[in-house]
Amino acid sequence: MNVRGLSTTEIEAQLATLRGWRLVDGKLHREFTFADFVGAFGFMAQAALVAEKLQHHPDWRNVWNRVTVDLWTHDLGGLSAKDFQLAARLSQLAGDSA
Amino acid sequence: MNVRGLSTTEIEAQLATLRGWRLVDGKLHREFTFADFVGAFGFMAQAALVAEKLQHHPDWRNVWNRVTVDLWTHDLGGLSAKDFQLAARLSQLAGDSA
Repeated sequence: MNVRGLSTTEIEAQLATLRGWRLVDGKLHREFTFADFVGAFGFMAQAALVAEKLQHHPDWRNVWNRVTVDLWTHDLGGLSAKDFQLAARLSQLAGDSA
Repeated sequence: MNVRGLSTTEIEAQLATLRGWRLVDGKLHREFTFADFVGAFGFMAQAALVAEKLQHHPDWRNVWNRVTVDLWTHDLGGLSAKDFQLAARLSQLAGDSA
């Protein structure tokens, strides 16, 4: 897995492939909304397994039916391919096609 | 379950029975630290079941091995007995005696 930092051009190109994600303070940010807490935590449980397998973990917050996610590669102080890989997997888990 | 708002005196008395929790912006606040992400999310998975059973859910954030929790009774705009009940259960799950 390539863990180098991505350039601005690369980030823009990757962002264009994702739906619902945007840059906030240099991090990949998205808010997911579910029917209720069971829906939200069910998503988190699946996402936790994916994150652990990738060895890349989200900064995330849950308030009842909402899960707010920030992705960032701490070691680089920027975004890497892993952030976009995890973002795409989270979107899939939440039921998005992208 | 009593869901009335607690008075300042009641809150202080309840806080004295809990270890590690403090008031931040009127909410019950605590940060838990675990060995790694698996430890942190294992705690969250157990806590999610407790919260759902209590029908009282935390505002919480996870960053790798850390879980930051804020408890508050949204419907009251303040603290209720449920917040202290959930706080005590979370402490137990994290391995505290209190």
